[in-house]
Amino acid sequence: MKKIYVKDLKEYLNQEICFSGFVDTIRDKKWVLFVILRDSTGKVQMTIEKSDEKNQEFLELFKDLHVDSTVKVEGKLVVNEAVKLGQMEIIPSKILVTSQAMNLPFDYNNLEGVSLDTRLDYRFLDMRNEKNILVRQIESTMVMGMREYLYQNDFTEIHTPKLIGAASESGSEVFEVKYFDRSAYLAQSPQFYKQMAMAAGLSKVFEVAPAFRAENSNTNRHATEFTSFDLEMSYIDSYEEVMDLEEDLLIAGLTRVKERYGEIIEEKFGTKVVIPSKPFPRIKLQDLYQELHTRYGYVIPKEDIGDLNAEAEKLTSRFAMEEYGHEFIFITGFAATKRAFYHMRDLNGELLGYDLIWQGMEITTGAQREHRYEEIVKNAQEKGLGKDVEFYLEFFKYGCPPHGGFAIGVDRLTLLLLQLPSVKETQFLFRGPNRLEP
Amino acid sequence: MKKIYVKDLKEYLNQEICFSGFVDTIRDKKWVLFVILRDSTGKVQMTIEKSDEKNQEFLELFKDLHVDSTVKVEGKLVVNEAVKLGQMEIIPSKILVTSQAMNLPFDYNNLEGVSLDTRLDYRFLDMRNEKNILVRQIESTMVMGMREYLYQNDFTEIHTPKLIGAASESGSEVFEVKYFDRSAYLAQSPQFYKQMAMAAGLSKVFEVAPAFRAENSNTNRHATEFTSFDLEMSYIDSYEEVMDLEEDLLIAGLTRVKERYGEIIEEKFGTKVVIPSKPFPRIKLQDLYQELHTRYGYVIPKEDIGDLNAEAEKLTSRFAMEEYGHEFIFITGFAATKRAFYHMRDLNGELLGYDLIWQGMEITTGAQREHRYEEIVKNAQEKGLGKDVEFYLEFFKYGCPPHGGFAIGVDRLTLLLLQLPSVKETQFLFRGPNRLEP
Repeated sequence: MKKIYVKDLKEYLNQEICFSGFVDTIRDKKWVLFVILRDSTGKVQMTIEKSDEKNQEFLELFKDLHVDSTVKVEGKLVVNEAVKLGQMEIIPSKILVTSQAMNLPFDYNNLEGVSLDTRLDYRFLDMRNEKNILVRQIESTMVMGMREYLYQNDFTEIHTPKLIGAASESGSEVFEVKYFDRSAYLAQSPQFYKQMAMAAGLSKVFEVAPAFRAENSNTNRHATEFTSFDLEMSYIDSYEEVMDLEEDLLIAGLTRVKERYGEIIEEKFGTKVVIPSKPFPRIKLQDLYQELHTRYGYVIPKEDIGDLNAEAEKLTSRFAMEEYGHEFIFITGFAATKRAFYHMRDLNGELLGYDLIWQGMEITTGAQREHRYEEIVKNAQEKGLGKDVEFYLEFFKYGCPPHGGFAIGVDRLTLLLLQLPSVKETQFLFRGPNRLEP
Repeated sequence: MKKIYVKDLKEYLNQEICFSGFVDTIRDKKWVLFVILRDSTGKVQMTIEKSDEKNQEFLELFKDLHVDSTVKVEGKLVVNEAVKLGQMEIIPSKILVTSQAMNLPFDYNNLEGVSLDTRLDYRFLDMRNEKNILVRQIESTMVMGMREYLYQNDFTEIHTPKLIGAASESGSEVFEVKYFDRSAYLAQSPQFYKQMAMAAGLSKVFEVAPAFRAENSNTNRHATEFTSFDLEMSYIDSYEEVMDLEEDLLIAGLTRVKERYGEIIEEKFGTKVVIPSKPFPRIKLQDLYQELHTRYGYVIPKEDIGDLNAEAEKLTSRFAMEEYGHEFIFITGFAATKRAFYHMRDLNGELLGYDLIWQGMEITTGAQREHRYEEIVKNAQEKGLGKDVEFYLEFFKYGCPPHGGFAIGVDRLTLLLLQLPSVKETQFLFRGPNRLEP
């Protein structure tokens, strides 16, 4: 029999139904036992009259049953205006306990006193919190909206290898894997391989997949494993086309989220989902420095010149909101020394790429890529990259169309969308230097 | 300017257009130079009249240009009934070479004499072969069709960690990762975590992600890294509901593929995309043994009793086709000893799970899972599993709905769909014991 979800119950009013779910709450009143049942879409009340002779076995059953046990109930779904939960209740005729819960180590409905470590140790209980279930459903919807936009625009989804033969982009911060009688490494990003797809002539590709960074740092934004939404497209004339596409992509995702979860996000997370208008504001780094100085007295530290830092990102969003009333802002004109060797530069050495800042945090680095063999070899040498990138440089020897792309961190996107305090609460299961479990 | 693809050119007849692509072929005739241009959707002819004075610079340009260089062309797209490629041609007014190709190490249009190792070394060239580009586009479409079916049916897409703290299901065949001052391992499957999602109350989840197996074997079906399409759903009464869902899922994927690529698959790969009818035939292992014996004189070897092997799988498909005229067949009734400890068994110890065979190869193992704490602990002990699964057993202590699911190997699905000889040609980049590059 097909499971009926709480969200669809109203279609079954005054019918005999079968309902399965967790026992959420048991309220023992003088004349009646109220049992609130829960599934991933909501809650419904089951009402057991104590005076009814045939209910005695049910009362017996709930005497020792802990909340969060699961049950399968047959009964009639009746209208009852007095019931807060959807003005309906289930009057059971049969109850089967499908799993027995032990006493829970903490109350996931009230997480304030619970340490984050305990919550992560018991993530499967922590996630039963209504908000945490929503985080997963909302993230899935956001990614779905973005994916569908790309499907409709003829992008091909690819699956690039995470096991790689060389330590890749930088050498530091890469995990080493014992691979039979040699070493392999875990890919920090699919950068090289999505560009390989361009050389292969695939034109427009994307991938949503894990990426790995062996950074021994404990912040609210960093994880050793995270989900990366990567995209690459050929035949562009400028990185501005990449920015145009990213605008449409984010709007597609946010629109889906707002349609389906806009109200509940406002209610439960206290934040509004705003569909950004096009085009997003775009500003050159030098002009931005000027604005941050004039408006907020902020001067970028010497070591960050040519780039932004966390504080500057925050102020940049403040500026975007005050000047343009916009949550997003593109920054261009970064220094080539501050970016990877595969980013293209113009004749003046200026980088043909951008960062996208949303609500005070960088969510994307995008760029046109260097696709000309002689130039990319020169750029790699300049950064002191040797044997590790040789295989990559090969991709450009036999013709490769001009192309560009970007990556979005999915966890960070969800964090900002729902204003969560840390990626530790955003990821399905957080992975950090001190956390590999459960 | 937005790139115009070959597939859309007919909308621009008799207009000035800009077209970008690879130089596919150069045909130097007495009075005219024909240059065939190519992008990921097809080919188009560019025609350069030698007698025309203003074409001299173009002729000069193509004198030393190798095929597979990329160009950007401005010109008029005119109708010409004599042109085989779409009865149209581009008359250029401007040509820009966007990248220069060196001489190619082999002809990717004629791969017969080229060793598979050379092809994999130069996978970015190998993939320029028209069929190999199609493999990627068709796989993407198959997965898209499956995904969209799940989105429409309220599944949540999750991203589970690939870095895990314990050697997981078996101990052997797991890759070890140097993780700061300890060891981590690469997940062989998201099995434990998609079940964790069930314990967390997510009800219906799926994931498409890499999985890793440290098997030192070189066959046409095995890879050390592959793409796994995993699914898990709660509140089932029987594994038959899981089979029902898998039928719908595969039909959704195959329907998308047939709509978009059915004809070209028949033309280029010589195989028909068949949308299977519902329900797929289902047979018990004991009855299947009987059929294979009676029909083909096949007796399952002693060591495989309770299971199938490669030869039996082939004969099973032959039987399915002869008896039911069906490409798919579900087998049930496997021995519990032949399957993982988390599969549920009935009171007689019979496994509540199935295999799905398609065209002679197993593509799925699915099952209802053991969700009752006492039982799953007992099953784990019986298989001699210790500390490594302790974290997993925790998931069942605090209530967990009945659930089941399955995994489909995406690479194997593509291999069967297009009748390719090996996963080495199916994967974007094959990974095996002797292959980590490029």
